[in-house]
Amino acid sequence: MTELLTERSGRVLAARKLTRRAGRDAAGLFLAEGRQAVSEALATAPDDVREVFATEAAAAASGGLVAGSGVPVRLITEKAAAGLSETVTPQGLVAVCALRDIPADAWLGSPPRLSVALAGLNDPGNAGTVLRTADACGAGAVVFGAGSADPYGGKAVRSSAGSLFHVDVVRGAPLADLLPAVRAAGVTVLAADGGGEASLDALEGALAGPVLWLFGNEARGVPDDLAALADARVRIPMRGRAESLNLAAAAAICLYATQLAQG
Amino acid sequence: MTELLTERSGRVLAARKLTRRAGRDAAGLFLAEGRQAVSEALATAPDDVREVFATEAAAAASGGLVAGSGVPVRLITEKAAAGLSETVTPQGLVAVCALRDIPADAWLGSPPRLSVALAGLNDPGNAGTVLRTADACGAGAVVFGAGSADPYGGKAVRSSAGSLFHVDVVRGAPLADLLPAVRAAGVTVLAADGGGEASLDALEGALAGPVLWLFGNEARGVPDDLAALADARVRIPMRGRAESLNLAAAAAICLYATQLAQG
Repeated sequence: MTELLTERSGRVLAARKLTRRAGRDAAGLFLAEGRQAVSEALATAPDDVREVFATEAAAAASGGLVAGSGVPVRLITEKAAAGLSETVTPQGLVAVCALRDIPADAWLGSPPRLSVALAGLNDPGNAGTVLRTADACGAGAVVFGAGSADPYGGKAVRSSAGSLFHVDVVRGAPLADLLPAVRAAGVTVLAADGGGEASLDALEGALAGPVLWLFGNEARGVPDDLAALADARVRIPMRGRAESLNLAAAAAICLYATQLAQG
Repeated sequence: MTELLTERSGRVLAARKLTRRAGRDAAGLFLAEGRQAVSEALATAPDDVREVFATEAAAAASGGLVAGSGVPVRLITEKAAAGLSETVTPQGLVAVCALRDIPADAWLGSPPRLSVALAGLNDPGNAGTVLRTADACGAGAVVFGAGSADPYGGKAVRSSAGSLFHVDVVRGAPLADLLPAVRAAGVTVLAADGGGEASLDALEGALAGPVLWLFGNEARGVPDDLAALADARVRIPMRGRAESLNLAAAAAICLYATQLAQG
């Protein structure tokens, strides 16, 4: 019988530190939990996966997912798995992965046709959902401004449903410097703003070229000083009586409209 | 000094029962927490607001929100307010409102141009977000199929951001009976399905007339037996690598596309 690592083993304790942002940044590593995330990590960036922790049940259920990848698998107890998880029902399968950030300059040097920047986005679930939607709509990069939720937190990784491994990620970005620079590089910067002067459905021309969408805080929106640096503040026309849209819903509409315009 | 009702007072205990679905259904009442929800309740359906509980601080901060409405205000302690709240930071302002359901037949007898039906939607936050998005895009009704999250739960009410008071709500609906009936009434039924045979961007004609969008469970989608009753299963075209979209994001895209087509 193989020995299981408990919640007190050194490897598990080291991994547990990655459930906090300070621990992730110190180690340069994060945890990707669950079959989908582990599968995407191994498919997209196998060299960045340092090890996989699995309960016996999860290892048995995962089939050949990790086998053959060359990544070491450590069997752990259920209790150890719970300590590495931020979910109520831990999946028992967690990959330790290198942070995937690229420098802001690398993004700026060759901006993709569609990028997303987040200014003060607070909720980790929203961060992951916007990453997922950005990926679905063909965005090449998501830029997290200083003060935004960490895309490497457990809830954000889970909400991204694997998309964290598909798009370039910039973190802690000084958006006040980057927005003018990316405009100078030929990218149209659009700030999503319920009170914006431009209506999304009248923007086709602007959306067809390279675009950066700027989304803000769930309650306060895009800070005025950053919105002032955009080419336009854009509102989503609403026929009904709701005052505004949920941030992730608004982002989905803006990004899908851009995908359509970019053809 | 006015006496404050504590968490042990009969009125507060009765209201606390409304934090559970069984208590809501037994009393025919629900709780709308926070300034925005209370304000929308008083503006939209003042006769349906039975009483408002407020901490002294919340009553002072609410200005003339409730005064003049004829609705009785009961001052409560902070602890009593916490017991009526599902949030970590209670807002101290809660309205007791009559459930707003309309019978399925009333909806069916005069279907609005845009309706939404939810089959097995599990997360209350998603239920509220879809209500909010449906409202924003001009939907007249949201039909909650049997087994879907309760739109009157605290998290759903909060996520709906007041939209629960703007659209007609049908609950516990037998969708297998209603979908054929609403089609017979001239409404095009579209099931959102990542593997659907129809692409959203090729649907303009169908979207321009009366439409019912059917959305399913977050993980499992629309049940096959219900999707088979739709005019079409519709996928959102995705240029990127994400396998699917978050349910609330997918709903936002489908409903906004419909709003545009309906002009």
